[in-house]
Amino acid sequence: MSRRRRHVIDLDEMTAAEIEEILELTESMKEVLAREIKQVPTLRGRTVVNMFFEDSTRTRISFELAAKALSANVVSFSARGSSVEKGESLIDTVRTLQALGAEMVVIRHSQAGAPYLVAQHFAGAVINAGDGRHAHPTQALLDLFTIRERLDRIRGLKVVIVGDILHSRVARSDLWGLTRLGAHVTLCAPPTLLGPAHFWTATWPQISISHRLDEALEGADVVMVLRLQKERMQAGLLPSLREYSRAYALTPERLERLGAETLIMHPGPMNEGVEIWPEAATAPNSVIEAQVTNGVAVRMALLYWLAG
Amino acid sequence: MSRRRRHVIDLDEMTAAEIEEILELTESMKEVLAREIKQVPTLRGRTVVNMFFEDSTRTRISFELAAKALSANVVSFSARGSSVEKGESLIDTVRTLQALGAEMVVIRHSQAGAPYLVAQHFAGAVINAGDGRHAHPTQALLDLFTIRERLDRIRGLKVVIVGDILHSRVARSDLWGLTRLGAHVTLCAPPTLLGPAHFWTATWPQISISHRLDEALEGADVVMVLRLQKERMQAGLLPSLREYSRAYALTPERLERLGAETLIMHPGPMNEGVEIWPEAATAPNSVIEAQVTNGVAVRMALLYWLAG
Amino acid sequence: MSRRRRHVIDLDEMTAAEIEEILELTESMKEVLAREIKQVPTLRGRTVVNMFFEDSTRTRISFELAAKALSANVVSFSARGSSVEKGESLIDTVRTLQALGAEMVVIRHSQAGAPYLVAQHFAGAVINAGDGRHAHPTQALLDLFTIRERLDRIRGLKVVIVGDILHSRVARSDLWGLTRLGAHVTLCAPPTLLGPAHFWTATWPQISISHRLDEALEGADVVMVLRLQKERMQAGLLPSLREYSRAYALTPERLERLGAETLIMHPGPMNEGVEIWPEAATAPNSVIEAQVTNGVAVRMALLYWLAG
Repeated sequence: MSRRRRHVIDLDEMTAAEIEEILELTESMKEVLAREIKQVPTLRGRTVVNMFFEDSTRTRISFELAAKALSANVVSFSARGSSVEKGESLIDTVRTLQALGAEMVVIRHSQAGAPYLVAQHFAGAVINAGDGRHAHPTQALLDLFTIRERLDRIRGLKVVIVGDILHSRVARSDLWGLTRLGAHVTLCAPPTLLGPAHFWTATWPQISISHRLDEALEGADVVMVLRLQKERMQAGLLPSLREYSRAYALTPERLERLGAETLIMHPGPMNEGVEIWPEAATAPNSVIEAQVTNGVAVRMALLYWLAG
Repeated sequence: MSRRRRHVIDLDEMTAAEIEEILELTESMKEVLAREIKQVPTLRGRTVVNMFFEDSTRTRISFELAAKALSANVVSFSARGSSVEKGESLIDTVRTLQALGAEMVVIRHSQAGAPYLVAQHFAGAVINAGDGRHAHPTQALLDLFTIRERLDRIRGLKVVIVGDILHSRVARSDLWGLTRLGAHVTLCAPPTLLGPAHFWTATWPQISISHRLDEALEGADVVMVLRLQKERMQAGLLPSLREYSRAYALTPERLERLGAETLIMHPGPMNEGVEIWPEAATAPNSVIEAQVTNGVAVRMALLYWLAG
Repeated sequence: MSRRRRHVIDLDEMTAAEIEEILELTESMKEVLAREIKQVPTLRGRTVVNMFFEDSTRTRISFELAAKALSANVVSFSARGSSVEKGESLIDTVRTLQALGAEMVVIRHSQAGAPYLVAQHFAGAVINAGDGRHAHPTQALLDLFTIRERLDRIRGLKVVIVGDILHSRVARSDLWGLTRLGAHVTLCAPPTLLGPAHFWTATWPQISISHRLDEALEGADVVMVLRLQKERMQAGLLPSLREYSRAYALTPERLERLGAETLIMHPGPMNEGVEIWPEAATAPNSVIEAQVTNGVAVRMALLYWLAG
């Protein structure tokens, strides 16, 4: 029995046992979603507030469907059209939501750390749905679940994360989760999208770092391709999309050299033809759609787990 | 027993028997809506996604209420605030919605044909809630239902559709439905809002075409007035609103000359004083409000029919 | 037995007995919200439409949660993205909502009187969620409930309302409610934010008026602090925020001079450091959060009461 946590803000706060517990719960939730009637009354009459200060389709809808599958009431709150536009602070908003009876808050925010601020002023549970470049723990949990579902384990696997690692909250949360469960992680990126190696090895000494994707992919069990924000180009961090693609994209050529068992993952939305080719995205060993599907079950598991 | 269709994109794909089946189902749904508790558990735990890329109040709310009356989960997705704004393609969005567990998608889009594109990439059912100038099948079905409810039949009726027929998806879908069920249709519009006659008679040889409303209305059982978009004026397709109204609006004078039994219909929203006068809109033989009411039941019937 | 009203547009239309009835019902609703499963099937299958033409977080969510706690279907309708943007009139919109099956409409509008207009054209029940400077009856009812909950009565209490009374719909509705239940009300504001005294005493001859907060607070059982709109400054109605605060804000000094039993209230959102200091907002005798919490129960009571 792990002790119950009140919030899920990042995986650095979770023990391996807690992560395993969430993954087990996720399996039960998948069984619910496989039924004819994909709904259980577990959270009937309880209120989940979705606070999305950054636009997101898949994550917002994923949380909404997860809450509804548990019969919770879901209230959507966006910055547009709310008192936040009138200058009400995030803290005041959260206090109000609590006074209104909200028991769980899901927050996505462009500012790293915003969920901690919310957690300090909210008696209920807070789930981080992505904060700045800091963390995206539910994405990492669904990644872990998807790997384990396909390969039966995490421990000892070689996982390559490739792309714009420096600006990626997904990479950070995946690093916490993968290393805690015993995977060997290799980060692969051009130097301008990685930063100094010690930035990463100071926290995660066991990982490998590479600037050459073809070398990094050797013997990989999993390759996680990150989305390349086009803004990076304008910021002068990259010479050209074409250069980037030649060196770091998952092209049909690289796809062929991968083992047929190597999982291909992407958190979406993809820039096809930039960091990943359509042939790779739809290959038999791609689990990109499974990631989206598993996201609903993982979020159901977290809502259930936090509801106690 | 008609075979089950997977999508409802336009009525040209539906047989008369299928249309009749939907109209029968609509009747059962009206009985549900007439109860104290207007809700049945038919679609509990199943997810309907409303994708409205064009603004619409009545159609969006009508589908939302229809889905809720069947206890489905409804997720609303608009272009604003979604990944579509970030440039994600419609196809990617639909694939994501499917991976998230959506079983039915309702789509309204300014581009004719968008629902076909969605249907090609979606394993569930697609309902067209209006695409460009192409089709608006749920409006046509509710029109058919409303006529049959009041006049007990469709076959042999004289139905006049008047107004901006050239740009109207409602007119096109009504034409498919009315002719398939055996009504005599007369299209009435100024030449600039109708186009060449053979454009219509090539597809529907049995219909009549007229440029004079007073003649067209003689012996009419039903008159369907279309909304006049004010943009038509700016585009130089019409001399002036006043000219248009004198020749083609349902004025109090024309109302008096109509039989007391002639149904008056309008898909809404109306421009009162432009294509229809308030006296006509609220006349005892106007069924404009019944059309709105029946829309919820028709959409329930379609959701039920497609869910199989 | 009071006769049933069809609408709740302001408290001037309610008898003391009706107000008491709502407060009793609110108590039952609080019991529902105190349960593990905060939901009853009272309004299952019935439709409440939230029409918010003015932005508001707390009131909109409060109504949404209230309707969901009674198992009603809630449809949200905002001016943005609706046919209202295309120029459809409020009356047409309401007629359409009625034809769609809506049984209750909750409306917030910047124009005083908009809810009366809606009520004239809607067969169901209308609840005013704030209209211009006219009224905010649900805020007044939750204020009355909160006072009675803490002090066991309303009759005979001294209630001071301080701040921008001239522009406040909250003050007007509180005045109707408090005087009808027998409280002694003192209005306290600078002359530019109050207007001529006879404007108030003509309608409520029993109230007191003051321009000096320290005098007004003597012997107060309740102090209701109103939000100061910063626009007032720009309009030249106030010399400076600092002057205003010195004379009319609930500062730590004034807090100390208040009795420990004097309730501190604010309708939110607060401008801390302008009309109220954080020390006062979070003092043990502050019931500001209780107001928000009670708001959900009051709105449940009204929905139940109007549903008959």
